[in-house]
Amino acid sequence: MQGQDSNPTAGDDHRLAVRRIQRLSLHLTPIPRSLCDSDELQMLRCSRGTPKLVVETSNLSDYMRGKNREIQERIYEYFNSKPELQTPLEISKDDHRELCMRQLVGLVREAGIRPFRYVVDEPAKYFAVLEAVGSVDMSLGIKTGVQYSLWGGSVVNLGTKKHRDKYYDGIDSLEYPGCFAMTELHHGSNVQGLQTTATFDPLANEFIINTPNDGAIKWWIGNAAVHGKFATVFAKLLLPTHDIKGVSDMGVHAFIVPIRDLKTHQTLPGVEIHDCGQKVGLNGVDNGALKFSSVRIPRDNLLNRFGDVSRDGKYTSSLPTKNKRFAAMLGELVGGRVGLAYSSVGVLKISTTIAIRYSLLRQQFGPPKQPEISILDYQSHQHKLMPMLASTYAFHFATVHLVDNYSEMKRSHDEELIADVHVLSAGLKAYVTSYTAKALSICREACGGHGYAAVNRFGILRNDHDIFQTFEGDNTVLLQQVAADLLKQYKEKFQGGRFTVTWNYLRESMNAYLSQPNPVTARWESEDHLRDPKFQLDAFRYRTSRLLQSVAVRLRKHSKTLGGFGAWNRCLNHLLTLAESHIESVILSKFIEAVEICPDENSRAALKLVCDLYALDRIWKDIGTYRNVDYVAPNKAKAIHKLTEYLSFQVRNIARELVDTFDLPDHVTKAPIAMKSEAYSHYTQYVGF
Amino acid sequence: MQGQDSNPTAGDDHRLAVRRIQRLSLHLTPIPRSLCDSDELQMLRCSRGTPKLVVETSNLSDYMRGKNREIQERIYEYFNSKPELQTPLEISKDDHRELCMRQLVGLVREAGIRPFRYVVDEPAKYFAVLEAVGSVDMSLGIKTGVQYSLWGGSVVNLGTKKHRDKYYDGIDSLEYPGCFAMTELHHGSNVQGLQTTATFDPLANEFIINTPNDGAIKWWIGNAAVHGKFATVFAKLLLPTHDIKGVSDMGVHAFIVPIRDLKTHQTLPGVEIHDCGQKVGLNGVDNGALKFSSVRIPRDNLLNRFGDVSRDGKYTSSLPTKNKRFAAMLGELVGGRVGLAYSSVGVLKISTTIAIRYSLLRQQFGPPKQPEISILDYQSHQHKLMPMLASTYAFHFATVHLVDNYSEMKRSHDEELIADVHVLSAGLKAYVTSYTAKALSICREACGGHGYAAVNRFGILRNDHDIFQTFEGDNTVLLQQVAADLLKQYKEKFQGGRFTVTWNYLRESMNAYLSQPNPVTARWESEDHLRDPKFQLDAFRYRTSRLLQSVAVRLRKHSKTLGGFGAWNRCLNHLLTLAESHIESVILSKFIEAVEICPDENSRAALKLVCDLYALDRIWKDIGTYRNVDYVAPNKAKAIHKLTEYLSFQVRNIARELVDTFDLPDHVTKAPIAMKSEAYSHYTQYVGF
Repeated sequence: MQGQDSNPTAGDDHRLAVRRIQRLSLHLTPIPRSLCDSDELQMLRCSRGTPKLVVETSNLSDYMRGKNREIQERIYEYFNSKPELQTPLEISKDDHRELCMRQLVGLVREAGIRPFRYVVDEPAKYFAVLEAVGSVDMSLGIKTGVQYSLWGGSVVNLGTKKHRDKYYDGIDSLEYPGCFAMTELHHGSNVQGLQTTATFDPLANEFIINTPNDGAIKWWIGNAAVHGKFATVFAKLLLPTHDIKGVSDMGVHAFIVPIRDLKTHQTLPGVEIHDCGQKVGLNGVDNGALKFSSVRIPRDNLLNRFGDVSRDGKYTSSLPTKNKRFAAMLGELVGGRVGLAYSSVGVLKISTTIAIRYSLLRQQFGPPKQPEISILDYQSHQHKLMPMLASTYAFHFATVHLVDNYSEMKRSHDEELIADVHVLSAGLKAYVTSYTAKALSICREACGGHGYAAVNRFGILRNDHDIFQTFEGDNTVLLQQVAADLLKQYKEKFQGGRFTVTWNYLRESMNAYLSQPNPVTARWESEDHLRDPKFQLDAFRYRTSRLLQSVAVRLRKHSKTLGGFGAWNRCLNHLLTLAESHIESVILSKFIEAVEICPDENSRAALKLVCDLYALDRIWKDIGTYRNVDYVAPNKAKAIHKLTEYLSFQVRNIARELVDTFDLPDHVTKAPIAMKSEAYSHYTQYVGF
Repeated sequence: MQGQDSNPTAGDDHRLAVRRIQRLSLHLTPIPRSLCDSDELQMLRCSRGTPKLVVETSNLSDYMRGKNREIQERIYEYFNSKPELQTPLEISKDDHRELCMRQLVGLVREAGIRPFRYVVDEPAKYFAVLEAVGSVDMSLGIKTGVQYSLWGGSVVNLGTKKHRDKYYDGIDSLEYPGCFAMTELHHGSNVQGLQTTATFDPLANEFIINTPNDGAIKWWIGNAAVHGKFATVFAKLLLPTHDIKGVSDMGVHAFIVPIRDLKTHQTLPGVEIHDCGQKVGLNGVDNGALKFSSVRIPRDNLLNRFGDVSRDGKYTSSLPTKNKRFAAMLGELVGGRVGLAYSSVGVLKISTTIAIRYSLLRQQFGPPKQPEISILDYQSHQHKLMPMLASTYAFHFATVHLVDNYSEMKRSHDEELIADVHVLSAGLKAYVTSYTAKALSICREACGGHGYAAVNRFGILRNDHDIFQTFEGDNTVLLQQVAADLLKQYKEKFQGGRFTVTWNYLRESMNAYLSQPNPVTARWESEDHLRDPKFQLDAFRYRTSRLLQSVAVRLRKHSKTLGGFGAWNRCLNHLLTLAESHIESVILSKFIEAVEICPDENSRAALKLVCDLYALDRIWKDIGTYRNVDYVAPNKAKAIHKLTEYLSFQVRNIARELVDTFDLPDHVTKAPIAMKSEAYSHYTQYVGF
């Protein structure tokens, strides 16, 4: 994704070569030597007191821009040319839903963008489409995701050829709008606790879908309230037995259930659908609640890739246990998380662009008898927005890496990569969406009163994005998956196993970092040292390793008295911190890598600056931990703080270029206060002057 | 406000006596001895391992409840009896504005609540009214504030008898809806930078109000887009002179400008009004933009309490300088900040009540083969919500104290109290509203998908409350006022001056805290010690004193090279941290005081627990600072962290009682997921099952 020219092969080759060298060097030192000794970096480290960096926005933009920019531009252009398809600021829920459907139909049938074709074969392009349509209206992004990743994705990934043959075209063309009916009123995170049942009736060769109680009503189902014709329903598969119990519970499976008549659009018998009503945001998506009263569907409607029921009611599966089947099923849904992490960075880019452009424009107060100064010249404002801008860059490279890995996984089905993508997508989705949610509020506040005008976007973006923290896996639950995986690998390592790619840095760190911190380096405070990527990465990894080691000890101790579940809960805050710390380590290492391989010198210098700010700001934010174990001495802590403020100031000096690099046209950012020129005039015109 | 019985005099006497003793004891030790040695507290400190506290909600509620509960209940009852006056979840901007006006008219003319009568004489009752109507619909709260505190308040506080005689009844009865036209497109925080002019024409005996450029358009003016008949317009007063310049700028003054015809409601000649449009929230308030083209008003329309112009164009004032007059004018507007801080705590109470009730109801996952557990039983969830609940209690007592002081100030006009209320209202408004804004997002996320249903309130509360951080003074600017005042007093102290009431703790601290931390106490880690209010207050105050001392040194150093403005900016983050730290010290001391004087033993024990959590959580959040100067040794830091988690667990055990204490009826919390019984059924019924 970081190809610096239009020839993806050359870019890829270069990148692969660099990676190979890095991997090799990792066996010698935890950090590529090139990063420690290169002349360029030495130069950069001495930048203090040097004049403002020169950033050629177009060069940096070329480096950042993905291979799929072209399709994004087609999408932007299409909607820009269709005023009637643009979402007004004020629109009723019902109108918004209809407009959103028209937007999707326009995209697919008129603009000729067929997202479904990319879901399986070109996921990077699919995520690029999602990001672009999400920036038109996030409701459209989510509606697209519901139709193609969730409903469509469940059919192609959990079903077999017969399903693909029957449904592919209808899903692709939008003739079969559909739903993904997993969550119930009483169960969201705990999917294995779902209560909806699918009982096989061997006489009729049918499954009977039933909602046993109100807690099992399918809730929040996108596309259900208005447009859906089908739903993939997740239900406990019950097979008749000849013993006393009468049925055997085979665990949660997925079934295609028609919910509305294909011609009349009438709700089908036994299906009760209600509108979930007004939401905090995303009101263009028609979420509904579904209750099934013994709805009969053909046996063929079981999505049978991981488990099947024969005509005579026998269960077969290539996977040996209920848990393995469940994991395989959920594993196919990981793409949703990748898409959310990626789109969340897109939202963050829009938001930081608006906030920073306006903060450069806005002037308030100044030295006596002199002109007022830009509010971005205030240290407090730099403190709010510059580490955020640095994080946006950091997340950009991390999510591009995730999309690359996901695409590779879809091609190769490599087992190690599957595990890696599972954990990384969970962790990045949780970390990035939590960050963006907070950032949107900070941006609104940083733009003062004018940030409160709906036309300036922050409110709508925040309301729409908010639920990114919850759907496709609650962030607190996802981070626990990261921690659990880390502990699993930690234990396996002691039994001779090895860490997967994302964790491999722990190979060295587990030994290196558990020794006492070095009292000499703990006092080093020169700018050269603090801006050395080796110091930064070591600090991040030290923290992760220490958290991992200590939580493992605590869990062992508490398990004896509290049992596994109780011990986990007793250490839960610790585990979440561990997961976040690991994700931060991964993000930083990807950022450092991206700096290193950037071919343009000026761009590389700018990225290095931004990367240093990201790293040191994070270390400072958790300085208590570092001080507690004397990894960092008081003088060094002070130096880190001082340098963070100084780097914020430096980044402020190239802030305009850094947001221009995101390459968002005015018709995408939309906020009048963020127009590239004459912003105040756009704003007064909007109001009617 | 904390009277524990219906006889306010007895309660007040008791409180005053306690305060006198405290003041006295402050001369001997920094902490009242009673707090260190009382048997009750000794008992409390040994609570570890003791069973769950018994909380009698009604006793605690009696203690918390203000004297003005009765009028709040009348308001709740009135709106509960008028379904047609309840704001639906989905409503257009225009309809919302009309409804909001009908709500206000109903309140005043039908329910017979006359807020204007309390603005000057019974401010505590006025704030109670604002809190209650704000919980009906925050737009109504703000519209009420615009009409009575801002428009009405400017007339009675900045004007003289002639204005009162002419406008009081019309404002009171809503016949004269009005605006407060201060903010301009280009100037919000920097009020002295306003550009609208009011030029005196001695021939006509009139002022000419003019908008010299688009940047000077009055912007965000509440009541302007639809309902306002008048506006208090803030403009630079220009008086004709006989010298070359032709006019003399006397600084910003306030003028009553009619904007719409009293009978026809037509916009008056020379006034151009546009609608500011859709906002992030508060869409029931009709914010408009006003442009004046040489609008003539009689000389009498100058609100002339602090400065007047005679018939022949001579300026007179009881105050000697432009800055003093400006300060006096703004000083009269401080009530707005008091009201916002107070109402923000009201929002926080609603939000924590909903989030905690739902988190007790919601069950997800559990130990193997056992029932699922409440999500509030997860340590991570306790971590999100229990310190927040503790902060809500802390802010409650702090804002009640602020309202008491404000009321006392309005009675006595005591100069020291005026200074004190000015700083405390700025600081608490900034601190509390920033906290509540973040808390609303955390509550939404803590309630998962169901928190995203609009009916469950978090979205609307967040959108409406968001701007509390900006209006009536941007929080970042207000905190600087706190820091500036602190520095001023710090300097005066060295010149023989003294600290005002809010700062008086610094009298001792400045000497005591600047010595090296005690290496012995830095290691103390017993629960007794950590829960000793003396340790907690000392730690808070140590931090403030150190920040104050160090920033004073830094400012002196940087001023030499950067000048005053540059030095201030170079230290800005430091100054903001200082201000927050001071406000936290004040909040904690008020909380400790409230614990001490609570007459009911069980209630006192519960409050002590909550107060300890508030204190230790805050110390832990800034543990880096304490560690950096070895005020806290590593073992103690660890003990603080551990105890914070334990106290969160303890508070969770009485969480239901603690939110019940807020005494919010179901028709005020409204969220189906927070109903006191059968919450899920309320929710399914809402959706239509």
